[in-house]
Amino acid sequence: MEKNIPYKIYLEESEMPKQWYNMRADMKNKPAPLLNPGTLEPMKAEELQGVFCDELVKQELDDTTPYFDIPQEILEFYKMYRPSPLVRAYCLEKALDTPAHIYYKFEGNNTSGSHKLNSAIAQAYYAKQQGLKGVTTETGAGQWGTALSMACAYFGLDCKVYMVKCSYEQKPFRREVMRTYGANVTPSPSETTNVGRKILAEHPGTTGSLGCAISEAVEDATTHEGYRYVLGSVLSQVLLHQSVIGLETKAALDKYGIVPDLIIGCAGGGSNLGGLIAPFMGQKLRGEQDYRIIAVEPASCPSLTRGKYAYDFCDTGMVCPLAKMYTLGSGFIPSPNHAGGLRYHGMSSVLSQLYDDKLIEAVSVEQTAVFEAAEKFARTEGILPAPESSHAIKVAMDEAMKCKETGEAKNIVFGLTGTGYFDLVAYESFNNGTMTDYIPTDDDLAVGFAGLPKVDR
Amino acid sequence: MEKNIPYKIYLEESEMPKQWYNMRADMKNKPAPLLNPGTLEPMKAEELQGVFCDELVKQELDDTTPYFDIPQEILEFYKMYRPSPLVRAYCLEKALDTPAHIYYKFEGNNTSGSHKLNSAIAQAYYAKQQGLKGVTTETGAGQWGTALSMACAYFGLDCKVYMVKCSYEQKPFRREVMRTYGANVTPSPSETTNVGRKILAEHPGTTGSLGCAISEAVEDATTHEGYRYVLGSVLSQVLLHQSVIGLETKAALDKYGIVPDLIIGCAGGGSNLGGLIAPFMGQKLRGEQDYRIIAVEPASCPSLTRGKYAYDFCDTGMVCPLAKMYTLGSGFIPSPNHAGGLRYHGMSSVLSQLYDDKLIEAVSVEQTAVFEAAEKFARTEGILPAPESSHAIKVAMDEAMKCKETGEAKNIVFGLTGTGYFDLVAYESFNNGTMTDYIPTDDDLAVGFAGLPKVDR
Repeated sequence: MEKNIPYKIYLEESEMPKQWYNMRADMKNKPAPLLNPGTLEPMKAEELQGVFCDELVKQELDDTTPYFDIPQEILEFYKMYRPSPLVRAYCLEKALDTPAHIYYKFEGNNTSGSHKLNSAIAQAYYAKQQGLKGVTTETGAGQWGTALSMACAYFGLDCKVYMVKCSYEQKPFRREVMRTYGANVTPSPSETTNVGRKILAEHPGTTGSLGCAISEAVEDATTHEGYRYVLGSVLSQVLLHQSVIGLETKAALDKYGIVPDLIIGCAGGGSNLGGLIAPFMGQKLRGEQDYRIIAVEPASCPSLTRGKYAYDFCDTGMVCPLAKMYTLGSGFIPSPNHAGGLRYHGMSSVLSQLYDDKLIEAVSVEQTAVFEAAEKFARTEGILPAPESSHAIKVAMDEAMKCKETGEAKNIVFGLTGTGYFDLVAYESFNNGTMTDYIPTDDDLAVGFAGLPKVDR
Repeated sequence: MEKNIPYKIYLEESEMPKQWYNMRADMKNKPAPLLNPGTLEPMKAEELQGVFCDELVKQELDDTTPYFDIPQEILEFYKMYRPSPLVRAYCLEKALDTPAHIYYKFEGNNTSGSHKLNSAIAQAYYAKQQGLKGVTTETGAGQWGTALSMACAYFGLDCKVYMVKCSYEQKPFRREVMRTYGANVTPSPSETTNVGRKILAEHPGTTGSLGCAISEAVEDATTHEGYRYVLGSVLSQVLLHQSVIGLETKAALDKYGIVPDLIIGCAGGGSNLGGLIAPFMGQKLRGEQDYRIIAVEPASCPSLTRGKYAYDFCDTGMVCPLAKMYTLGSGFIPSPNHAGGLRYHGMSSVLSQLYDDKLIEAVSVEQTAVFEAAEKFARTEGILPAPESSHAIKVAMDEAMKCKETGEAKNIVFGLTGTGYFDLVAYESFNNGTMTDYIPTDDDLAVGFAGLPKVDR
């Protein structure tokens, strides 16, 4: 073990970021604007304010202000679980016998189990500031819903979560965490909304979908006084809040004079990757420093590597604004055999533009290989990783093995977004050898592409 | 929030304990020795060495050496998850509106989810040093088995866990964590041991018991070359390893000049409480400083508050040495409605002697009140606590409310031993309002007492 770099780097309170960084301010090619699905015109603030909190609408639309002060109340909440450690993976390096130096930023040391809490607390704060009664959202496996329920409990906000019915029934533990934090968790589709009742009437036995849950959450927020809808990924505001991950990472690396060669993160909607890379990309955009940045996505849901860069619906219910992004089409149905998150059909507009400008790379990996990497990581580094995070682990390990061949001592940094304590059904199938891989055929993808809206922008 | 005391106190690497502290060295009345169940004579080292590793036998029998150097390899492993934070519960204090200052030592920030890893890594280390192939153990809910499987994965040791069959079937997630770390997990009773086969022949439908699992693990260790049996609580060696909790806590408090008035810990077998209080009790035993120390146990399994101080079997299979302890009798059957651990019929010999000498107090609490405290803690401090740890939370909150009445700004320190991510069935019954309390009647206790062995010592 090297003497100068500690196993874990924790920032001092005085070294913690006090502002979020907005990558868009330094982008020459700005991400395309959200469009009104009716008029196909860019969404105006007043159109968005019925759905989102006023301050969050401002953040969403602002692509010129580089820094936003983090409100004091959020900084106070951060103290519960931040700074997160930047860990030097000494044990993994030894097990791989690689000259590479591997670092990971571990965001799982909080009860929500992931980085999602960083944006949940910000969104809950602005809702509270606006004097709202509460917020609504949807959740699939429950990571985002858990984070939001914790944030709402802290600020005394009502929290209504529409949870995809099959998850509600099959993953009761996440549901109970949310309920312990006081959230009202409703299986979706439900009888409480028009869209839910309509879907139930048409498909009485349906187990729900994320698209339907989004539609119910939006309807609930827009039809109840004092409520707004919040979302845990994809949006530019979420990437802004998540920039705290990258800012802490950079401060920790700078403290020890470490310059990363490679920055790797898993990417579903893009909130983690967008947050992790933010200040590094800022340097890259300003021409101060170059880094290789790799987005890792599942081969079963390959929006960057096999998607189209086009305007699309953000939800399958088609109630949300259109966003320009790398997408598989909102009608793309991810494989049911895929474990964990990263199943979103599209990618953050910010990351999509950066990818289109060749400022980041993307690779896709198959899930059994991902779980092999997860198992190796757990046994050497101690932490049981979330399946999502394990996509980044897999590629970090691959890159470290390339270093072994070339003898290069590259600095590899990856985001360990969360823990896998609620993903043990997936680990069980891996342990039993029954896990399978799935790669959609071109014909499978064609179905999703066929549903893309016609937008000439 | 006060400016001088950080929300979380993390020790620097240079401030970390390098030695474990053995409370027994400073005890005037030593804990009574383990007895051979056949001869009723004190167990000799050579009798114990067939079951336990040589170095651990030395630690078990040594009641005079105050400090043991922590081996370098264990200090290296500690870096993965230690120091654990000492947290000032500012948010909980505010919610209770108490003048008390509440601190908790949080041991749950590792994949095993609890303090058990502190002894698991030590026991695995000594097994490796002795050149053994592996270790065997039993586990109920799986906290100890998980910790041990992580430690064995790190040292490349074989790990055989006999898991009580009903837990194996009803709590598959802990089982899968253990398997991910490479442990061989067998539902107990099993066909792999004589005692297992005997029990299965007599009771074909049995779902097992901890006593039976211990017997199988001991038989497996003693009948296979290169294996020894390891245990996660009760033993004096385990308290020695767990002293790292208290040593870190004391170093963190000393750093800020904080002197606790009250130290509170949950107590099942006693490993957490014994570790947390170790250096404080040392001062108390040497007459340097006085502290109030409170052991909290469940009303459903009240070994200190309602048990007898007597020699008893450590296991229901009666294959282990006899230990003098506060006990409900090895035949006592804890209520099936009780959530989480703390269900052991006896208490560590060290803590039992300290209690008999009136150096620690004990209280028992009922589980719905414990879960009310757990919910309040989760909502204010963010962490979803383990049911075991929540016993200590409940009493810390009660004591803080007494301070509110008297206006005293007492320093209350408690042990937050772990997280509740694998205890959500219990949280669900609390959330649904179906959780019930259970207090054994005197007649219930008489059954256990009737089975105490006759020992005139």
